[in-house]
Amino acid sequence: MSDVASPPTHQDLTPGDVTETEATTTTTVPTTGADLYGDRKDVVVVRVDGTLWDLHREIPTGAVVEPVTLDEPDGLDVLRHSAAHVLAQAVQQINPDAKLGIGPPVTDGFYYDFDVAEPFTPEDLKALDKAMARIIKEGQTFRRRVVTEEEARAELADEPYKLELIGIKGSSDDAEDAAEGASVEVGGGELTIYENVRGAGRESETVVWKDLCRGPHLPNTKIIGNGVKLMRSAAAYWRGSEKNPMLQRVYGTAWPSKDELKAYQERLAEAERRDHRRIGTEMDLFSFHDEIGSGLPLFHPRGGVIKRVMEDYVRQRHIEEGFSYVGTPHITKEDLFYTSGHLPYYADTMFPALDLEDVGDHGRYRLKAMNCPMHNLIFSSRGRSYRELPLRLFEFGTVYRYEKSGVVQGLTRVRGLTQDDSHSYVTPEEAPNEVKHLLNFVLSLLKDFGLDDFYLELSTRDDKKKDKFVGSEEDWAVATKVLEDVAAETGLELVPDPGGAAFYGPKISVQAKDAIGRTWQMSTIQYDFNQPERFGLEYTAADGTKQRPVMIHSAKFGSIERFFGVLVEHYAGAFPAWLAPVQVLAVPVAEAFDDYLKDVVAQLTARGIRAEVDLSDDRFAKKIRNASKQKVPFTLIAGGEDAESGAVSFRFRDGTQENGVPVAEAIEKIVAAVRDRVQV
Amino acid sequence: MSDVASPPTHQDLTPGDVTETEATTTTTVPTTGADLYGDRKDVVVVRVDGTLWDLHREIPTGAVVEPVTLDEPDGLDVLRHSAAHVLAQAVQQINPDAKLGIGPPVTDGFYYDFDVAEPFTPEDLKALDKAMARIIKEGQTFRRRVVTEEEARAELADEPYKLELIGIKGSSDDAEDAAEGASVEVGGGELTIYENVRGAGRESETVVWKDLCRGPHLPNTKIIGNGVKLMRSAAAYWRGSEKNPMLQRVYGTAWPSKDELKAYQERLAEAERRDHRRIGTEMDLFSFHDEIGSGLPLFHPRGGVIKRVMEDYVRQRHIEEGFSYVGTPHITKEDLFYTSGHLPYYADTMFPALDLEDVGDHGRYRLKAMNCPMHNLIFSSRGRSYRELPLRLFEFGTVYRYEKSGVVQGLTRVRGLTQDDSHSYVTPEEAPNEVKHLLNFVLSLLKDFGLDDFYLELSTRDDKKKDKFVGSEEDWAVATKVLEDVAAETGLELVPDPGGAAFYGPKISVQAKDAIGRTWQMSTIQYDFNQPERFGLEYTAADGTKQRPVMIHSAKFGSIERFFGVLVEHYAGAFPAWLAPVQVLAVPVAEAFDDYLKDVVAQLTARGIRAEVDLSDDRFAKKIRNASKQKVPFTLIAGGEDAESGAVSFRFRDGTQENGVPVAEAIEKIVAAVRDRVQV
Repeated sequence: MSDVASPPTHQDLTPGDVTETEATTTTTVPTTGADLYGDRKDVVVVRVDGTLWDLHREIPTGAVVEPVTLDEPDGLDVLRHSAAHVLAQAVQQINPDAKLGIGPPVTDGFYYDFDVAEPFTPEDLKALDKAMARIIKEGQTFRRRVVTEEEARAELADEPYKLELIGIKGSSDDAEDAAEGASVEVGGGELTIYENVRGAGRESETVVWKDLCRGPHLPNTKIIGNGVKLMRSAAAYWRGSEKNPMLQRVYGTAWPSKDELKAYQERLAEAERRDHRRIGTEMDLFSFHDEIGSGLPLFHPRGGVIKRVMEDYVRQRHIEEGFSYVGTPHITKEDLFYTSGHLPYYADTMFPALDLEDVGDHGRYRLKAMNCPMHNLIFSSRGRSYRELPLRLFEFGTVYRYEKSGVVQGLTRVRGLTQDDSHSYVTPEEAPNEVKHLLNFVLSLLKDFGLDDFYLELSTRDDKKKDKFVGSEEDWAVATKVLEDVAAETGLELVPDPGGAAFYGPKISVQAKDAIGRTWQMSTIQYDFNQPERFGLEYTAADGTKQRPVMIHSAKFGSIERFFGVLVEHYAGAFPAWLAPVQVLAVPVAEAFDDYLKDVVAQLTARGIRAEVDLSDDRFAKKIRNASKQKVPFTLIAGGEDAESGAVSFRFRDGTQENGVPVAEAIEKIVAAVRDRVQV
Repeated sequence: MSDVASPPTHQDLTPGDVTETEATTTTTVPTTGADLYGDRKDVVVVRVDGTLWDLHREIPTGAVVEPVTLDEPDGLDVLRHSAAHVLAQAVQQINPDAKLGIGPPVTDGFYYDFDVAEPFTPEDLKALDKAMARIIKEGQTFRRRVVTEEEARAELADEPYKLELIGIKGSSDDAEDAAEGASVEVGGGELTIYENVRGAGRESETVVWKDLCRGPHLPNTKIIGNGVKLMRSAAAYWRGSEKNPMLQRVYGTAWPSKDELKAYQERLAEAERRDHRRIGTEMDLFSFHDEIGSGLPLFHPRGGVIKRVMEDYVRQRHIEEGFSYVGTPHITKEDLFYTSGHLPYYADTMFPALDLEDVGDHGRYRLKAMNCPMHNLIFSSRGRSYRELPLRLFEFGTVYRYEKSGVVQGLTRVRGLTQDDSHSYVTPEEAPNEVKHLLNFVLSLLKDFGLDDFYLELSTRDDKKKDKFVGSEEDWAVATKVLEDVAAETGLELVPDPGGAAFYGPKISVQAKDAIGRTWQMSTIQYDFNQPERFGLEYTAADGTKQRPVMIHSAKFGSIERFFGVLVEHYAGAFPAWLAPVQVLAVPVAEAFDDYLKDVVAQLTARGIRAEVDLSDDRFAKKIRNASKQKVPFTLIAGGEDAESGAVSFRFRDGTQENGVPVAEAIEKIVAAVRDRVQV
């Protein structure tokens, strides 16, 4: 396959993506994938000595060959990239003046960039969908042909962007630059052109379209099938640079079958239905304002309730688990971050300095982007004894990170984030137990918020780039072993992430699946042997000597804001009773029952329940609709019969009803649901 | 009296300072204060048509004259300023080369600035104390003499700073500038020299010292008495400007009697004993760090407990009183503060802008110095109905204010402060009830923290500078009346503060006296008809029209940090049980009773009590001393008898003990003290 796809995000790395290799074959004579696996319809390309090859490409003797099917990510990517070629062919069928950019596979699909006079309209996309379906049905053959640079230039004389890619093919550095911008279609040792051939092998054989491309592709467009759909188009700079021409990028999704396409579209619709930004506005939970700035949310009264309940609970759990709640400011002289090593390393993700020299004081200040340096100062503010360890400092520390405008999104990617941040200072011997303690704590906390489908990721040093990581060989080995062992003990799936560690130590991250199967990176447990050194942290050991502690960073939700967003989507706004802003809404059947329900609500309020009576002028049916729209867990209704018998009727969020429940019983039922954090 | 003293701070304005005027006399012939009040030894100066005059100065016919005694602030200031002259004379006796600056009265005493080659040493101050006592005992007469500018220049040719003051006397603007720098000794219509005369009226009469000064003074140094003591010296720039020469300022305290001096010294020692900065370090509550910056505290685990308990309680009370807890970021585009009118008005007290244009985004950002503009955006984020009002938004909003380095002090004056800030949006009709609601709420909150001795201050517009205040005549009249009426209803003393209002409306502030009688300005309730206008805030009234709400700002403690500091001083670190970081420390008489007390502590912990067993290697007596040093409310001791009978012995902070209390009873006693917030 030719394209360098966008790197998958953490959220994409679900356990299902892990490649299960099938039995391999070692070739003894020159052959092709088609020869080897001709009897298997599910094989679409082969992996030859680790690289993907077209089925019809000749494989030399002595190569190790594996079949690749659409069931694995590599096979699916080949299908998606093949669909991109079909899209490009369709575009040039309809608009022969369109010039080709690149067309890689991406998560769930593919795109292709075109230089066209006008942006694509929704009608254009519909027409292209039809044209693609025709091409796919035709069963065109993808044919690979090796060409010289001169041949390529001659054949693609009308394609200026392809010519540019041929130009940068020689220098791998340039190619890498281009790849960073977007993706390149060339590379490797030889230039190849892929032709789409109608009636291949027959006399009427015609080359209907071609592209400069590294490949590989499916043998035939027919295999793409009817699981393809164009999604949208957007402007994009050639090679990602504002200095280059603006192209039009068409995004499509592609799946091995129509059913899988449908399932994907349903997932999309479900995600849209659960979008926390939409629900946040509908339920009046939070807002963003141009007057304040990007990524800086305001939490409204109802959102403030959820945030407070989350924070109170998480804080209480931390205290029970032996953490001390501390408090530190949001700004500091920037020297502190040079001491910690965060500057200049993380300068790009920090807000710029506040220069107080301008106003007659000394020094440059920064908004903090992390809390650890301040916790280190608390640790070192007086002598520490081994008896005090593990010392666990915990804070809801709001940090500010200068995320690029394009990346900021709702609450899930903000510029001001409140970390539930803890730092455990331990003796090296205590480290394994502390990591275990943290991991079990984190998992149990997440379960209380209805997340219970996890896997772990272990981020380690890139052994090929040791100079980019501080700490000795032994430090890394010991720390990695500690995390590995503890992770293994949980029995959860452990996905390796080699090279993904921070420069100062390895980490475990907890990935949690939400109600619709999406994976979110939640908690991190980060081993650090660097900052204790840089801050000269010490404790007095039992033998009276001064020793250096190990520091273990841990954020349980990552950030309260992001977790808030995740929970809105996980629950689709229907928060369990203990988190719901309004837990009970009492709706009188008629005004005559206002006082009766006011009394019930007063009893609930006295028990700490967030309960209200709807005393508005709205009619009964409208009140019920409002309660449903606000996703209130318990709607209590009272009419004549209820009032006479001292009862209420429950209406639940799923529309079911339970009539004539005695008030005392109703109150106990509600109190219990809140107390036990029932996931209703 | 000549000098312009430092303006008294809010904290100095205790009700005792309010002047009770005595009966006045209207002169019918030219006379003097001494003639009028010669029979009254307690009269030290007179007030002539509102201005203080020396007793021996001739008063023209038709003037309204009042006697002034040392019991009132004006009289005491005259004594203190007279003592400053005695100090200056003593300095020039010992060091004739010393050049005179200025010498005004200040809170509790006076100072005088001198240009001397070397700073004053503590030994110098002792010698000066003795020299002053001699001068006072001598009974020198203070004599006033009007001079021309030429005469003054000739007589004070050796005093360059006095010559400078004569120079600026002409221009009132300059004089005002000088006054802002420090204080000026001249002004008014005529120049006067005050002489100290030995043996006045006798043949041997000698002028021993003189000073250019507006006066007035006591008639005689003897009246100063033996309530005077020099305190310290410090460098100070002439007229407060870094461009001017550095002088040496000697501070003294002065009181009408030796007993009052002693009482003052005891108050000082008591304040020193209670200094929250010292206690904060001793009890390991918080710290400040040069690495972070001035006025930016770190709260340690024990301080974090107090802060959390304070915040939890205050938040809970707000919720019970109908406030909604919201959340807003610490930074915003600075335009928001131009919209609110805080910029450019408050630019000096805000941190400088973060210029994001430097890093590729648009706009300048500011650390917020107030929360109100963000609450306004929450208000206006959707349509509001009169039914929703009063809408009370509440937040623990940490704001950053660029206090000058010299002003920053411990937790009581910081640069990062967490306001318990609320904004009530009400209809104009609801305003009186809301102010009442807020005031009663604030007073009841303060009482829970052991503060119950209050008076109120009502800050209103300066009617002479109407252009410095926004809003109509009627707006101010209505708002001032609302505050006045509500304040009167409380029955508390109401001290007027004309001209002390913010530009956007009048306010009530609550002044509370602490355990040693010091007054702290705590809460403010601020009426605002300006921001609703600037933000275009609206609600739909019952008749369907759009109306503008009134906004009432209120901070209950001002800031959590400052209130924390005040409470440390109020309780001298001995926090009541509900606030104490460790509520119970269990101390086994010997190791054999460790397990017994661990069990008791486990029972307490299960009841939510912060309890620990001292399991250190320290001896019993040392453990008891540690508990006392940590000011733990309840120390539980167990030895053989206790363990056998299932009891414990209480040791309280005052050193008293209660032996053989059954464990169950002990637990109930402790739980009750915490639950009821008993002020032990």
